[in-house]
Amino acid sequence: MKKQNLENDIIRMAKKARKASRKMALVSTSEKNVALRAMAKALIANGVYLIKENKKDLKEAETADYSKALMDRLVINEKRIKGMARCLLDTAKIKDPVGEVLNKFKRPNGLVIEKVRTPIGVIGIIYESRPNVTSDCIGLCLKSGNAVILKGGKEAFHSNKAVFSVLKKALKTAKIPADGIQLVMSKDRQAVNVLLKQNKCVDLIIPRGGEGLIRLVTEHSLIPVIKHDKGLCHTYVSDKADLEMARKICFNAKVHRPGVCNAMETLLVHKRVVRKFLPKIVEDLQAAGVEVRGCTQTRKIVNKGVKPATEGDWGEEYLDLILSIRVVNSTVEAIEHINTYGSNHSDAIITKNVKESELFLKSVDSSTVYVNASTRFTDGYEFGFGAEVGISTDKLHARGPMALEELNTYKYLVRGKGQIRI
Amino acid sequence: MKKQNLENDIIRMAKKARKASRKMALVSTSEKNVALRAMAKALIANGVYLIKENKKDLKEAETADYSKALMDRLVINEKRIKGMARCLLDTAKIKDPVGEVLNKFKRPNGLVIEKVRTPIGVIGIIYESRPNVTSDCIGLCLKSGNAVILKGGKEAFHSNKAVFSVLKKALKTAKIPADGIQLVMSKDRQAVNVLLKQNKCVDLIIPRGGEGLIRLVTEHSLIPVIKHDKGLCHTYVSDKADLEMARKICFNAKVHRPGVCNAMETLLVHKRVVRKFLPKIVEDLQAAGVEVRGCTQTRKIVNKGVKPATEGDWGEEYLDLILSIRVVNSTVEAIEHINTYGSNHSDAIITKNVKESELFLKSVDSSTVYVNASTRFTDGYEFGFGAEVGISTDKLHARGPMALEELNTYKYLVRGKGQIRI
Repeated sequence: MKKQNLENDIIRMAKKARKASRKMALVSTSEKNVALRAMAKALIANGVYLIKENKKDLKEAETADYSKALMDRLVINEKRIKGMARCLLDTAKIKDPVGEVLNKFKRPNGLVIEKVRTPIGVIGIIYESRPNVTSDCIGLCLKSGNAVILKGGKEAFHSNKAVFSVLKKALKTAKIPADGIQLVMSKDRQAVNVLLKQNKCVDLIIPRGGEGLIRLVTEHSLIPVIKHDKGLCHTYVSDKADLEMARKICFNAKVHRPGVCNAMETLLVHKRVVRKFLPKIVEDLQAAGVEVRGCTQTRKIVNKGVKPATEGDWGEEYLDLILSIRVVNSTVEAIEHINTYGSNHSDAIITKNVKESELFLKSVDSSTVYVNASTRFTDGYEFGFGAEVGISTDKLHARGPMALEELNTYKYLVRGKGQIRI
Repeated sequence: MKKQNLENDIIRMAKKARKASRKMALVSTSEKNVALRAMAKALIANGVYLIKENKKDLKEAETADYSKALMDRLVINEKRIKGMARCLLDTAKIKDPVGEVLNKFKRPNGLVIEKVRTPIGVIGIIYESRPNVTSDCIGLCLKSGNAVILKGGKEAFHSNKAVFSVLKKALKTAKIPADGIQLVMSKDRQAVNVLLKQNKCVDLIIPRGGEGLIRLVTEHSLIPVIKHDKGLCHTYVSDKADLEMARKICFNAKVHRPGVCNAMETLLVHKRVVRKFLPKIVEDLQAAGVEVRGCTQTRKIVNKGVKPATEGDWGEEYLDLILSIRVVNSTVEAIEHINTYGSNHSDAIITKNVKESELFLKSVDSSTVYVNASTRFTDGYEFGFGAEVGISTDKLHARGPMALEELNTYKYLVRGKGQIRI
């Protein structure tokens, strides 16, 4: 596609989405649920087609020699189609946030002010790899009363297009404006740049992906952005910890699923318990295939197979079976380390002392702060929110798991009897 | 100041503010209130100094031949100093939002999840003219547990510096880190560009000012922005309106204080009531010095002194005694006009019909939507929020009047007993 054509295309899409968003905001809960169930049914009914189209992407990925992890994320199979359909059905079951009254009060002059949840409007979601994001996000935006413009990664081009076309067709049988869901049908990254300038028609951009994508969006967007950035999570084992509990939690936080954003990347240990705690946990971790990198003090205690950790390690999200370990002199030092090197995602303290845990909870500047639990619980499903659009690492509007309520904003409805300002 | 020095200066300020913000978040309510009262007292005690410094700005403004309105906004006199002090004392009285529990629930695995309000961190406020913004914003950020970096306009350079130095000195007697409030001491606009890139140390930018400033910030900020942009407010007089009430409300919304963002700029009137409604209101408005610009149909009804409104009029925020009038065929047409040309600020319908007003409330995409009241009430004080940092025209995080609660974010505190993810 020529550059000018692409630009016109995106502008046209944004305008259509804006128009559709006015109608989406007024669709009733039951009509939205009918649409979600129709979309789930359509995915199951079109399984053969989806798998066939997905094969095109997998073939291109093989030629391009993509990593195993990426290849795995790309695959659409029968089980995953069922998963996508289930997510849509789950979304139909979650309470509709639109119209919820958050506050209501009467002013001395008699004005009645109501603060109510309303859809945001048009949401642009820019994401990489997994084709299930296409259907998950369409479902969540639809239920929360928003129009959505999706831009998936080029590696999942055919898969996204197939999922989208199946859902769009299903939508036509429901009372939802067809322009309420749109997919940018171009592999050209310039499409992203154009989308980021449509601040008249798009209200929010959510980037889900690697550092490059997040930087591109932050630097070029004229539209407010909620980042789903990296998770550099810590667990701090205090000298007042139940060390057996600490061992189980640390092992779980690192090994359970090392490739996700809520996995532990750095372990901090109070100097008073290093001798008792470190040898056993390092042995456990190494037995599970974890590469351990330690500070000087760590390596004085456990040396076998422990590489020296450099300054760069404290700021790195491994997303892999790698762990850095640092010995600290106090809880305050642990908090400072986390606030300096962390990514404001999820961090935990293991301690039996309430005063210490309260200081940690108050001082650590992260979306989710844990006492005596694994950081792996930062997740919309685990929090009981049903489906999620991702984990926000920003501090404004939505922090941590972002679900239906966070896909809404609010407005004030003011009812009067002729009041004027004096 | 040389460019490199300026850049280093801003970076150093941001780092200091980040460090101080960690402490600001932990300061108790009573300590914050002590500081606010000390600052109010200091303003009153240093009145002579403030007025002397303000004279320097006024003299420069005279030489530069600034408008009367701008000159007026710049002035510091005894009455305004009392106003600034009162705002700080009011802020001391408002409930501290930090630590408020917004939600608390227990998961089936026993994890107890608490959603609590927390300070945002470091807030950058970029504003023009009025020196009272300096003290108002310092007070609000302090009470909400945030560090603040202020950048005022060059026209109020000496005044801002004087207000700031008085407040900073007062702060030293209280238990608040002095680096928690900072002012960029440079007239160079390049300072703004540097500040907008400090996304590691600054969490939020609030621009308060004209279109040029808002555009500059939106285009260059790497930090999330909450815009306090223009207010292009409408009043729609339905054919089901109490026309006498409509007349009073419209007059108030336009004439009471035409230079502010919640004043009416466009009046929409249903075609069925134009003959009965328009002649009288136009006469009232013209008698009050309002220049009226009307659509073709308006000018068929009232011609005397009514200029033709052009397409450009529908999108213009006059901030002056000027009003555009358009006749519409239906409520839906009025809603479409508002959503097309408005600025998502404040819009009103005058009607006795509940079904019609509910459609209007639901469909108009503005921060505040009124039934039978003047748009002039969109204001933190009028809403009962105490002081306000401004009116957000954005949809994310804060919409409409932005006060203490909106200067907070939230985080999740999760307390467990050794839970791991299975």
